Amino acid sequence: MMLVLSTDFGLEGPYLGQVRAVLAAKAPGIPVIDLFADLPTYQPRAASFLLPAYTRTPFPIGTVHVCVVDPGVGTERRAVIARVDGRWYVAPDNGLLHAVVATGQRAEAWEVLWRPDQASATFHGRDIFAPVAAALACGVKPGQTAPLQVKEIPAQDLCRPDWSTSLAEVIYFDRFGNAMTGLRGDACPADRLLTVRGRSLPYARTFGLVGPGQPFWYVNSNGLVEIAVNGGSAQNLLGLVVGDRINWKPA
Amino acid sequence: MMLVLSTDFGLEGPYLGQVRAVLAAKAPGIPVIDLFADLPTYQPRAASFLLPAYTRTPFPIGTVHVCVVDPGVGTERRAVIARVDGRWYVAPDNGLLHAVVATGQRAEAWEVLWRPDQASATFHGRDIFAPVAAALACGVKPGQTAPLQVKEIPAQDLCRPDWSTSLAEVIYFDRFGNAMTGLRGDACPADRLLTVRGRSLPYARTFGLVGPGQPFWYVNSNGLVEIAVNGGSAQNLLGLVVGDRINWKPA
Amino acid sequence: MMLVLSTDFGLEGPYLGQVRAVLAAKAPGIPVIDLFADLPTYQPRAASFLLPAYTRTPFPIGTVHVCVVDPGVGTERRAVIARVDGRWYVAPDNGLLHAVVATGQRAEAWEVLWRPDQASATFHGRDIFAPVAAALACGVKPGQTAPLQVKEIPAQDLCRPDWSTSLAEVIYFDRFGNAMTGLRGDACPADRLLTVRGRSLPYARTFGLVGPGQPFWYVNSNGLVEIAVNGGSAQNLLGLVVGDRINWKPA
Repeated sequence: MMLVLSTDFGLEGPYLGQVRAVLAAKAPGIPVIDLFADLPTYQPRAASFLLPAYTRTPFPIGTVHVCVVDPGVGTERRAVIARVDGRWYVAPDNGLLHAVVATGQRAEAWEVLWRPDQASATFHGRDIFAPVAAALACGVKPGQTAPLQVKEIPAQDLCRPDWSTSLAEVIYFDRFGNAMTGLRGDACPADRLLTVRGRSLPYARTFGLVGPGQPFWYVNSNGLVEIAVNGGSAQNLLGLVVGDRINWKPA
Repeated sequence: MMLVLSTDFGLEGPYLGQVRAVLAAKAPGIPVIDLFADLPTYQPRAASFLLPAYTRTPFPIGTVHVCVVDPGVGTERRAVIARVDGRWYVAPDNGLLHAVVATGQRAEAWEVLWRPDQASATFHGRDIFAPVAAALACGVKPGQTAPLQVKEIPAQDLCRPDWSTSLAEVIYFDRFGNAMTGLRGDACPADRLLTVRGRSLPYARTFGLVGPGQPFWYVNSNGLVEIAVNGGSAQNLLGLVVGDRINWKPA
Repeated sequence: MMLVLSTDFGLEGPYLGQVRAVLAAKAPGIPVIDLFADLPTYQPRAASFLLPAYTRTPFPIGTVHVCVVDPGVGTERRAVIARVDGRWYVAPDNGLLHAVVATGQRAEAWEVLWRPDQASATFHGRDIFAPVAAALACGVKPGQTAPLQVKEIPAQDLCRPDWSTSLAEVIYFDRFGNAMTGLRGDACPADRLLTVRGRSLPYARTFGLVGPGQPFWYVNSNGLVEIAVNGGSAQNLLGLVVGDRINWKPA
């Protein structure tokens, strides 16, 4: 059993420490792993397309993922639980779980009705999602007892009808300035050029196979199409931002 | 039992890893949580006013907090222990514990007399505070045995006579550019405008209740008055820095 | 027993979380500590000279260090294990272990022949180094069983003949902008001036002993010569970059 945190909270500030304090108190002894602390802020759609690639292998069946990008915190959006192919997800209902549900084989979903006596308006990660996730990690089933007072809902409710199962856009930059996209590499033939911001980039299998400073595209270690530069930052060299459109053309 | 770290060391560099190595060796099995790794550098006064809001709930009674913002490390400032309303604090005696002691109900304090055989001049977090905190977390009482060789001192010694129980200044920025102040929200009526750097900002309960890009003030999830922008950075939009003065006027 | 991670992956992105998931599954219950997540990217030589100072005390004998700065990932460079004075190191064979082997008393080394069924081209930290490190942490010996299928090699193979046992260059900046060098302080008399980028800096024992804003050199808490500024950033004030040459002259 593992609890895994994917948020836009940042690691250095006080938010994840408070989430961890709640988890340590309510699910003692269960390992807690930070997966993302830098999901794209205010952009649940971009963040959504990272989750299928990053929350499955190597996280075992039964893992409880807490996922939070939540610009609408404190307004009427719902708090939800999904179980997709054996892994749990606890998140706001703002599209963040769209891609993981839309690409899953088998999904169930619940709305969380429980509210603590003292929920803040702006930190549901600590006040609602963490206690719910801790209970799931301890083996409590949805509907069984507080805080898992829920209403079952169609899993399809967590998907957005106008979003697809992939996203031909830049969705995330890592520390090296590599630009991840919402495209699966196995759907993108290596003989095509990727175009972004007017530049056309060739495919290479890995960094050391292109010249220093050369941009290229490749299939990253989690299966996503990624734009990179050998020994440099694709983000800086190409002036990329989250939301940049990806296209393809013959080599 | 939990050990909690609030420092200005940064997470990515080598400092917290060494602190954790000492804690893992001397207090094995006790969870260690990073609360702040980005307390305001060189500014123990600003950092001090974060601690009452962030080191109590959800941290249980008995928690041992290691707090380090220590520009005077290696000079004559003392190392101290405080117990405030059941939680332990280990810190340099430079005002960092002022607010937590000044706003506590019941406080005791001790000067740490113990020094290791090989203390560095510049990393007391690893060499002194961590072993002391590990011993407290293992249930050793001040005065009982090394490294808890101490001298009891008046808790009031940790407070600065010219500092108050709140601070009408910007004291911290989070990852989103929200600006925390050293003011408790329950002392600030919501019908007033907050003024900072010549701007007057209205109150709102949460982000989604003002227009995109609009600055406002609200009471954050730990009870502090905070300046924020819906979907943006108050730090950047308003050009704020730590130390900016906060005032109030009628709406 | 501890597993310790020194990489250039950054903490906030998805890389260390995946490494931790593998370690939690394959070496359950063993503490995992982040030492560096910001080793100098693309620069295994600079990173190499941090390891002797930072991976020994306070890490106990038997500690397993996973060290990754790996611009050549996916090309022909080897994966290696070293045991140096009782501590284990798992790393790419690109010079990263040069200094720790060259300055050790007793070193052994092995090439890792094992490959998983599904290794990515670009994330050997997760796919190769983590499973190997987990096995070592669980007490498996090199050569005993998968994934520790190895070939013993001369430890000297991990050293670069043209690199020395110290490096008179800036090798790392911490969060405060302090500039570490690859020089041991015990080899550098305190009565000399350190010169870098045309500036000559005096020695001081600690920050509080020079005036505010003054640059100086000192021996840091892990024994390396470091360039610092009292209350400021040496990196910014002096315009330093990794690779800047250090020289000495009489005071």
